[in-house]
Amino acid sequence: MSTPFSFTLAATDGRARTGTIDTPRGQIRTPAFMPVGTAATVKAMMPESVAATGADILLGNTYHLMLRPTAERIDRLGGLHSFMNWDKPILTDSGGFQVMSLASLRKLTEEGVTFSSHVDGSKHMISPERSMEIQKLLGSDIVMCFDECPALPAEDSVVAASMRMSMRWAQRSRDAFGDRPGHALFGIQQGGVNQDLRGESAEALTRIGFDGYAVGGLAVGEGQEAMFGVLDYAPDMLPTDKPRYLMGVGKPDDIVGAVARGIDMMDCVLPSRSGRTGQVFTRHGVVNIKNARHADDPRPLDEDCTCPACRNYSRAYLHHVFRSQEMISGMLLTWHNLHYYQDLMQGMREAIAAARFDDFVTVFHALRAEGDIERL
Amino acid sequence: MSTPFSFTLAATDGRARTGTIDTPRGQIRTPAFMPVGTAATVKAMMPESVAATGADILLGNTYHLMLRPTAERIDRLGGLHSFMNWDKPILTDSGGFQVMSLASLRKLTEEGVTFSSHVDGSKHMISPERSMEIQKLLGSDIVMCFDECPALPAEDSVVAASMRMSMRWAQRSRDAFGDRPGHALFGIQQGGVNQDLRGESAEALTRIGFDGYAVGGLAVGEGQEAMFGVLDYAPDMLPTDKPRYLMGVGKPDDIVGAVARGIDMMDCVLPSRSGRTGQVFTRHGVVNIKNARHADDPRPLDEDCTCPACRNYSRAYLHHVFRSQEMISGMLLTWHNLHYYQDLMQGMREAIAAARFDDFVTVFHALRAEGDIERL
Ligand SMILES: [Zn+2]
Ligand SMILES: [Zn+2]
Repeated sequence: MSTPFSFTLAATDGRARTGTIDTPRGQIRTPAFMPVGTAATVKAMMPESVAATGADILLGNTYHLMLRPTAERIDRLGGLHSFMNWDKPILTDSGGFQVMSLASLRKLTEEGVTFSSHVDGSKHMISPERSMEIQKLLGSDIVMCFDECPALPAEDSVVAASMRMSMRWAQRSRDAFGDRPGHALFGIQQGGVNQDLRGESAEALTRIGFDGYAVGGLAVGEGQEAMFGVLDYAPDMLPTDKPRYLMGVGKPDDIVGAVARGIDMMDCVLPSRSGRTGQVFTRHGVVNIKNARHADDPRPLDEDCTCPACRNYSRAYLHHVFRSQEMISGMLLTWHNLHYYQDLMQGMREAIAAARFDDFVTVFHALRAEGDIERL
Repeated sequence: MSTPFSFTLAATDGRARTGTIDTPRGQIRTPAFMPVGTAATVKAMMPESVAATGADILLGNTYHLMLRPTAERIDRLGGLHSFMNWDKPILTDSGGFQVMSLASLRKLTEEGVTFSSHVDGSKHMISPERSMEIQKLLGSDIVMCFDECPALPAEDSVVAASMRMSMRWAQRSRDAFGDRPGHALFGIQQGGVNQDLRGESAEALTRIGFDGYAVGGLAVGEGQEAMFGVLDYAPDMLPTDKPRYLMGVGKPDDIVGAVARGIDMMDCVLPSRSGRTGQVFTRHGVVNIKNARHADDPRPLDEDCTCPACRNYSRAYLHHVFRSQEMISGMLLTWHNLHYYQDLMQGMREAIAAARFDDFVTVFHALRAEGDIERL
């Protein structure tokens, strides 16, 4: 018999929370950062290396996978976990956000969205029902409701109308998802930066009832101040006993600020994408490995980091392979960045459990203010 | 006290040989295939993964490294082994071949070659003395003489003049190399496809005396038949008690044919380069992973291969990530190809030791003639 999906809150410190999500595929320690495995791979990483960084769960992109290799093909091949050699939990998004940002010839109606693939121009449709079907075919452990997210800034009336349609879609998603023990369905709060609309959305979702709740419609270019403004109230509108997921966030200080405001789960392409462009996240802030100051530097990126990039290579080497456009550059820097993000989550989990989260945040900002080590 | 450099022949079967080269950095089992780590990385591979395929030694390219990050910089950083996190033996080429194929504004004199970097246009010079200096700065375990290799086909008089200059350069290389216990210097036989010139070259090199001997000037577009024609006599002109190295070879059947003709060491970019272009080497011949026939195929590339690409992924997955231009495609296929090459070497070493090399070659060709598994 499989473990059902459950969330256990172990400790809180201020609004910050730590706990565990139990699933048949293993435990997710929260606050959790989910690396993004868009097309059935976390770019530049072997899945066992992703696990070695400390990741308990990955995010997969419904939009990309439905187009290539297709959800039906992945289902025939035994599901996404086996396909991509990752046996821990996978969360899939609904496809909605990426349809709006990547597909062409989009047509949005109450029924759903029709669009043309950015890969080959083929025609497709996603509705709440089709999104549930695709995510089931993929074998996702945490399924996201299909929703719509208006670009900000937007008029309140536009945000309200969009949010209300998303709530109708949330009900249709819930109905289509059905009863799948061990699998979870998360609702997504919308309402832009309007507190009343956020409240109305939270109420609608809570009435339907979900296994977890996402704060949606943020990290879409509104800036950290506006995002934190919403996070000052939005997570508290959602049930305390379910995980809260902030989608698409973010930079390390976004993550710390979100956890401080009661968020339990996050995902972002930033650590992996930055790994491929030479941007390195460290306790001391961002290091740009392409900078000539590293060319002769025998020191590791971060003395205290235990990732392979820091244990086995100098900044000089990392600089050299980046400049030479060698694949190992993206491989090592992505590994480091994901390791750094997971270290950050682990540090926060421990600090919350020990009721010293404020101190953690103070040290986090102080180290960043110091900046990178002195050049040689 | 460090182990000196030594070669021990353990068994022969016909002209095929198996043995070991002992160096202070570890043992090299022969016949040995050396993956190519051009710019201080075997492309798409972590060095520990290269070691996991069974490689005992890597090749580094003097030309690339002298230009970027420069030999002097690598020396300041502690040498190439530490720089690239590879503690087993490294063989470096002399730079001569790649100067002639990659650099611009080349000017060749008795003294050496001046040229402009293909990276940034900067002016450089390599002579036998400078090549020895660079390879010493890199910390190479097996150093190659600086030589010149004329493009084939060429007039005998051109090949002869070039070979004789290479023999004068071999003497200058030997003189400049000096006495470096634990490090080896290999001479390079030239003479094109002319048996008399090959004999003259072998005699000149043997007179100078080296720790190993390369058969140079082959695998430059002359075709397998012409290459085997030279290998029918050239290796036997070289001392029996030293390793014989065939530079830049090759395809699996080139390698088997070379070992059958008394070659002990080889290197080639083919398995790693092919890994990035979707060409996969298997016992059954070449598989092109981009072919649509693999899109729904749940079977591994090779049932019997123990590499991660074959143990953990389907052909369908490898097809998908290749088509999606994901880095893991190059990572997995390169790993498989290098693993296949090392399996091939191990199979030959065992067959020679057991005096059943002919059977091994028969089975090798029979499996390839069968072709890839039937499509589903
Ligand atoms: Zn690190
Ligand atoms: Zn394999």
